[in-house]
Amino acid sequence: MDTPEHAAALGALRTALGDALSVDQIDLAPLTADKSGHDSHSLPLALVTARSIADVQATMRIATEFQLPVVPRGAGTGLAGGAVASAGQLVLSTLAMNRILEVSVADELAVVEPGIINADLNAELAALGLWFVPDPASKAISTVGGNIATNAGGLLCAKYGVTREAVLGLKLVLADGRMLHLGHRSVKGVTGLDLTALVIGSEGTLGVIVEATVKLRPLRTGAVATIAAYFPDVTTAASASAAITAAAIRPAAMELLDSRSLHSIDRFLGVNLAGRGETLLLVQTDGAASEAEAASALRIITGLGGDADITHDAAAGEELFAIRRAFHPALEAEGSVLIEDIAVPRSALPAMFAAIVEIEERYGIPIPTVAHAGDGNLHPNFVYTPGPAGEVPEIIWRAADDMFRVALALGGTLSGEHGIGILKRRWLADELGADQVALQDQIRAVFDPLGILNPGKG
Amino acid sequence: MDTPEHAAALGALRTALGDALSVDQIDLAPLTADKSGHDSHSLPLALVTARSIADVQATMRIATEFQLPVVPRGAGTGLAGGAVASAGQLVLSTLAMNRILEVSVADELAVVEPGIINADLNAELAALGLWFVPDPASKAISTVGGNIATNAGGLLCAKYGVTREAVLGLKLVLADGRMLHLGHRSVKGVTGLDLTALVIGSEGTLGVIVEATVKLRPLRTGAVATIAAYFPDVTTAASASAAITAAAIRPAAMELLDSRSLHSIDRFLGVNLAGRGETLLLVQTDGAASEAEAASALRIITGLGGDADITHDAAAGEELFAIRRAFHPALEAEGSVLIEDIAVPRSALPAMFAAIVEIEERYGIPIPTVAHAGDGNLHPNFVYTPGPAGEVPEIIWRAADDMFRVALALGGTLSGEHGIGILKRRWLADELGADQVALQDQIRAVFDPLGILNPGKG
Repeated sequence: MDTPEHAAALGALRTALGDALSVDQIDLAPLTADKSGHDSHSLPLALVTARSIADVQATMRIATEFQLPVVPRGAGTGLAGGAVASAGQLVLSTLAMNRILEVSVADELAVVEPGIINADLNAELAALGLWFVPDPASKAISTVGGNIATNAGGLLCAKYGVTREAVLGLKLVLADGRMLHLGHRSVKGVTGLDLTALVIGSEGTLGVIVEATVKLRPLRTGAVATIAAYFPDVTTAASASAAITAAAIRPAAMELLDSRSLHSIDRFLGVNLAGRGETLLLVQTDGAASEAEAASALRIITGLGGDADITHDAAAGEELFAIRRAFHPALEAEGSVLIEDIAVPRSALPAMFAAIVEIEERYGIPIPTVAHAGDGNLHPNFVYTPGPAGEVPEIIWRAADDMFRVALALGGTLSGEHGIGILKRRWLADELGADQVALQDQIRAVFDPLGILNPGKG
Repeated sequence: MDTPEHAAALGALRTALGDALSVDQIDLAPLTADKSGHDSHSLPLALVTARSIADVQATMRIATEFQLPVVPRGAGTGLAGGAVASAGQLVLSTLAMNRILEVSVADELAVVEPGIINADLNAELAALGLWFVPDPASKAISTVGGNIATNAGGLLCAKYGVTREAVLGLKLVLADGRMLHLGHRSVKGVTGLDLTALVIGSEGTLGVIVEATVKLRPLRTGAVATIAAYFPDVTTAASASAAITAAAIRPAAMELLDSRSLHSIDRFLGVNLAGRGETLLLVQTDGAASEAEAASALRIITGLGGDADITHDAAAGEELFAIRRAFHPALEAEGSVLIEDIAVPRSALPAMFAAIVEIEERYGIPIPTVAHAGDGNLHPNFVYTPGPAGEVPEIIWRAADDMFRVALALGGTLSGEHGIGILKRRWLADELGADQVALQDQIRAVFDPLGILNPGKG
């Protein structure tokens, strides 16, 4: 695959970066995939493991000089192929830039390098009584830089917001190696266009995030109440979650598992949860109103015929949420899994679940689905047998296509929190319209005129 | 002033828009100013009072055809000159597009036209138990479109967020008359670049907001506690506010009035607040933890030597906050007022107040200052005698210049919530850097290649 240009580029990178550059197949092999199941099966040219902002800038200057496509990468835990590299591309990893540069208790902010793992940051912060809110399911293994690049969500968004609400400022290295300082350390600020917000969720296409000033909250303290409510069907469970929101209750987390999900978990854990009801709604309340909110939620649930347990013990609550966390391991025990990620207005949850059942029947494939019910974000899952090159079978994409169209028709979106990456590019114009897609491409070109930053993604 | 091109443009506008077009001096006269005190003293070419999206699109198509600069305008309550028009410009008012198109209680969202007044929307929503959070001091007279165009803040941001956090989607008419649908009706969504966030705070330079899907919250209910605490000096008062935040208390509002502010209010109201202490800190708590938070805040305040009253009566709390609201009328009784709007990290409030005192002494001018203390946003005010053309005297700008430099050095920003408009353009590069200013200009050019949308602003 190596061309003379590639050899020259590698020479320049070696001179500038020394040991930070690797062309070792052992280092390159994992870079063709992420956690989406997608694999390019095509080794990239090289890996730069940046140790500093200067390394990132040197890499981008050389990439610009040689017009080399660059794939920024954190921990590679993405679910849309956004960090998947292939032949001729340079992977720029910020995983080794993982220091906490500053924590200000008084200003409730931290300045961090992008490679720090979300859970590692929070372990440090907890000792100071502080908390970085973004809480993707991957938090034990995903980086803060990756959380920002995808505007990561998670279980707590309805009450506590998404990553965008937790970032005050960024240092961003552009395609040509220049660095911009975006945002500020103050809580508020409206000077100029809000490029901090624009970069959040831009999936590595506008620049390389090399430092982030993140907003912290006081650590949650006090009582937590957790409800596990079983319902005979998903429509009633979705109605219960809607009624809880309508009653001005703000659960920290509200998770809905459909019948197929429960049966998978039953098989995996050797239990019989579905025996109590075909759908499970988990509700956790916290904060000063925790007990009152949980009591109100319980009344709504039992009023709608739910069969519910409630616990005020944090450890017992964790055990109930362990059911939710068993879902993905349960599916992975059954085959390859494509995790989808649509979002709809909360009131459309029953309609979306009904549409998923129709799509299951139309294509004859099961689509076990869980939802962050408080914010209308569903994760329908496809369990499949990969094709010869490891690819997702086309019938799955046809079913997904039907699903995306329903989500859009309901006023929702292709992706609630995972991003577009490679996997959803073909549906982008269905949501945004051709005019907006063209305009977004032009905006990307302002940051990256040569189109070398994560081309074909986002 | 009228050129043949202007006459042709006006002819085209008249044909397309009929009565929605006015060239009457009585209609044009107010358009040379906003609430900043700045006045162009230069009548614009014409005013279009759009009644529909189609009117806005027709206006922009004709403006593009004739390369006519367009100043989008709501209620004209801005504090940075962003909606100030001058000769040769067309003012496009969305004030008459003021309908609530939809309120979804289940989805906690409203779809509104841009011209609706913030308080009018909230009056309708209150009957449904819902609340549009953005709470600028101008809420009784400012439009939701203007709130979005400036990413308006207010007194409640530390706890409840800024306008950016309250917008789900926008319809935006581009310079050439095409319309984009940005965002969605779901709470979450990460499809493509976040252009909704980019447009919020863009001060009319990217397009004309013709519809907004806004996120609502349940109306606040239950007890409210209000504390008025007098301190001998601003540093101690700022320390108290910092200690309240550090104790994980989240007041709905926390306002700090310095000595000069209190004395102005005393003169205006004929009272003697400053007799109790030279600085006033107002703290209001709400929600389930209201009483506990107020008790904790009171302990902190008295521990630092504050002389405090507390009330649990909502009406009495309103009376205490009426002191704060008397501030601007009190200043306006003394002369022309320039309201400044810097923000710093909370911990830098004492340093910023100290710097303001130094600047007062350096220039021999009083700078009465109030702060949204919970989020570090200060409003230093200059009372001045206008120059012959009504302009702000240059000594005021020199003092402001010193102030901006200190705010930036402390990690803050030129504008916490009012925007850049005309008045702060000359400091933009001091905060953003020349590279970022150039990049922002290029992004604006993507939306508006001819540069006809609110040129010279933002």
